[in-house]
Amino acid sequence: MKYAIEKKLKNSLARTGVIITAHGEIKTPAYIAPATKATVKAILPEDVSALGAQAVLANTYHLYLQPGSELVRSAGGLHKFMNWAGPIFTDSGGFQVFSLGASFGTSITKLSKPEELGSRASAKQDLDALLPSEPKPSLVKITEDGVEFRSHIEGSKHFFTPEKSMQIQHNLGADIILAFDECTSPTASYEYQKSALDRTHRWAERSLAEHRRLNLLDLPDNAMPWQAGAQGSTLKTPQALFGIVQGGRHQDLREESARAISSLDFDGYAVGGSYDKEDMGTAVRWVNEILPEDKPRHLLGIGAIEDLFLGVENGIDTFDCVIPTREARNGALYTRRGRVNINNAEYRKDFSPIEAECLCVVCKCYSRAYVAHLFRAKELLAYTLASIHNLHFFINLVDRIRDSIADGTFFEFKQVFLSQYIER
Amino acid sequence: MKYAIEKKLKNSLARTGVIITAHGEIKTPAYIAPATKATVKAILPEDVSALGAQAVLANTYHLYLQPGSELVRSAGGLHKFMNWAGPIFTDSGGFQVFSLGASFGTSITKLSKPEELGSRASAKQDLDALLPSEPKPSLVKITEDGVEFRSHIEGSKHFFTPEKSMQIQHNLGADIILAFDECTSPTASYEYQKSALDRTHRWAERSLAEHRRLNLLDLPDNAMPWQAGAQGSTLKTPQALFGIVQGGRHQDLREESARAISSLDFDGYAVGGSYDKEDMGTAVRWVNEILPEDKPRHLLGIGAIEDLFLGVENGIDTFDCVIPTREARNGALYTRRGRVNINNAEYRKDFSPIEAECLCVVCKCYSRAYVAHLFRAKELLAYTLASIHNLHFFINLVDRIRDSIADGTFFEFKQVFLSQYIER
Repeated sequence: MKYAIEKKLKNSLARTGVIITAHGEIKTPAYIAPATKATVKAILPEDVSALGAQAVLANTYHLYLQPGSELVRSAGGLHKFMNWAGPIFTDSGGFQVFSLGASFGTSITKLSKPEELGSRASAKQDLDALLPSEPKPSLVKITEDGVEFRSHIEGSKHFFTPEKSMQIQHNLGADIILAFDECTSPTASYEYQKSALDRTHRWAERSLAEHRRLNLLDLPDNAMPWQAGAQGSTLKTPQALFGIVQGGRHQDLREESARAISSLDFDGYAVGGSYDKEDMGTAVRWVNEILPEDKPRHLLGIGAIEDLFLGVENGIDTFDCVIPTREARNGALYTRRGRVNINNAEYRKDFSPIEAECLCVVCKCYSRAYVAHLFRAKELLAYTLASIHNLHFFINLVDRIRDSIADGTFFEFKQVFLSQYIER
Repeated sequence: MKYAIEKKLKNSLARTGVIITAHGEIKTPAYIAPATKATVKAILPEDVSALGAQAVLANTYHLYLQPGSELVRSAGGLHKFMNWAGPIFTDSGGFQVFSLGASFGTSITKLSKPEELGSRASAKQDLDALLPSEPKPSLVKITEDGVEFRSHIEGSKHFFTPEKSMQIQHNLGADIILAFDECTSPTASYEYQKSALDRTHRWAERSLAEHRRLNLLDLPDNAMPWQAGAQGSTLKTPQALFGIVQGGRHQDLREESARAISSLDFDGYAVGGSYDKEDMGTAVRWVNEILPEDKPRHLLGIGAIEDLFLGVENGIDTFDCVIPTREARNGALYTRRGRVNINNAEYRKDFSPIEAECLCVVCKCYSRAYVAHLFRAKELLAYTLASIHNLHFFINLVDRIRDSIADGTFFEFKQVFLSQYIER
């Protein structure tokens, strides 16, 4: 994996660039489509590509439980298994082990359906409730070695370590994989957050060491390490490993984490945690002012419009979140003036597109009345059309943010867009 | 609408031909994709087209209840509403009024989900149970004028007449519409079937008269009837009306019905009823030996492989049924050696395509293991991939039947195909 900055925006940390993987380029800033269980829910891969997605993000926790990472490896890896030729990220399972692993038999499903919690959620109220301030020992047991948790599907016990997460992610074969971390609740005590952070840093070192060991193992006996991925070889494509920065809302912890993770030889970085808007200008900025400029930075689980602008402005290159597609399946459709609930009676006879200015295939070919009909009739195509539209909305918005950095109009674009967009 | 025979097969009633509508041609024999509620379930229209469908069939009963036919008319008609540029059929609601209209509050849903019963089912055991041998007066009231029934959605009362069915179908604007008929149970008494058939013939005359009246109404005051559909005009495209032949398993009733419906000036014919394999060589043959050769013949609700061959052999040009896509959503996938249940454990690690010889996009790009994973994970894409495959299987099979008539190898093809295909 290579990364190159193309343009830096004055008076901010924003930049455009390109991440080059063995499966193609990602022009950044970019919004990564959620493909939690090796599918972008309700959309064929060719349509995911057609709506503008450059890359997808699948999840270690979900794919480990179902269908199993050895099975995906036997299938030829995630790209072949799910028929996605472009770049793939996998999250490490860190977040899901703590949130979903603690959910079996609890009321977590009232907040978010576990099967939908593919990426780290961005909504603070979700996270606060999902992540126990100090994980309940009966459900999730954390030791120095790793985490014991239960499958949210049928309650079976499992144990994840940094090494195990790496082994699973090497089986899955994504282009960009993530270190195993502990994601603490923002309401946890400072002391707990500090000790969890130190553990996350030790786990980062162990993730990196195991990743290197596995990279060597992927080579046949008679090959030299530098032959990995050489043209014409049958070796696995080399994977890039991103370290994860945590530290909650504490400036000292965030800075300490950024320095600790920077000191290790990761190929890029991911920023984890729970965010409110103000955290973009604080926690995210603190981190990105320290992280080396020449490596890409992913912000985990961001699904709010304003946060995309603020994240980019504070040095983020890529985002992912399940919120746009989850909301789509509930009938909440994004427009540049805010979301509309297509289930409302007013849209039954509205023959205009979801958004007249939108260039997605749904807005070009279908009316609000048709989408409303599909939702009322509980037709599966409702979820497909709504997901295509919302995903296009997020991807296209980040594309436009990239263009605005390139031509120096970022702040004007941000001001105009956010003045029209009403959260509701 | 025009119809032309291209080739007739010796020693049978089979023929190839072409139906030309204002929205394109249908090369026959052809399998028409089910689009009950103005969507082929789980598949985008462009993918329906790409998998080989020439035309779709939507349903008057369902669209009348939801979203309403006036709404579809306001949307610019079915083609625009559902984004399907090709030919569309609508069934008249006759079958559904009797089956679904009698289902509210009953156990019909145990047999088939009402929302899935878009076309006339072909399975005898379904029909026998669906259609009361003499409709229960408390649920469906039949008079000379029409039928009172209840919505299967919320139980509200409605009244359909032949005129009402025509008005709804003119609002929907399909290329080929069907006369309003009564579909009796094959277990009903001869006397009941005879009286229902006579009524169906009187309703056929009323359907035709109302269709003609509406065709004139669709013209503006100052237009002459022959100007309808003229290039550059804003008039509605003329619709073709097919008469429906009933008569159960009684040769005299079938022949009487074929003669009665032939005597009216319909643009084509549909054969209704409940079928077993033997009915193709009896009921269907009796009818098609009488119906005029120069008009197309549709067989309602056929979803069994052998029946496609037998139907064509006995003079049928087009078929429709929801069974292939309904079965797809349950994980029953068609191969030329019979159906496979993708939920069976043996397919979890089967990295071969559903069928190696199949040319559909699913078999080209995905493994059985991936489709099995999607079904186990209850991912919406499971229903999309399975539906694409099964629909392609039926459409491609009828296409190959057409080719075999064209090159004179129909009977060899039938023999080889059916000797390999095992119903299970």
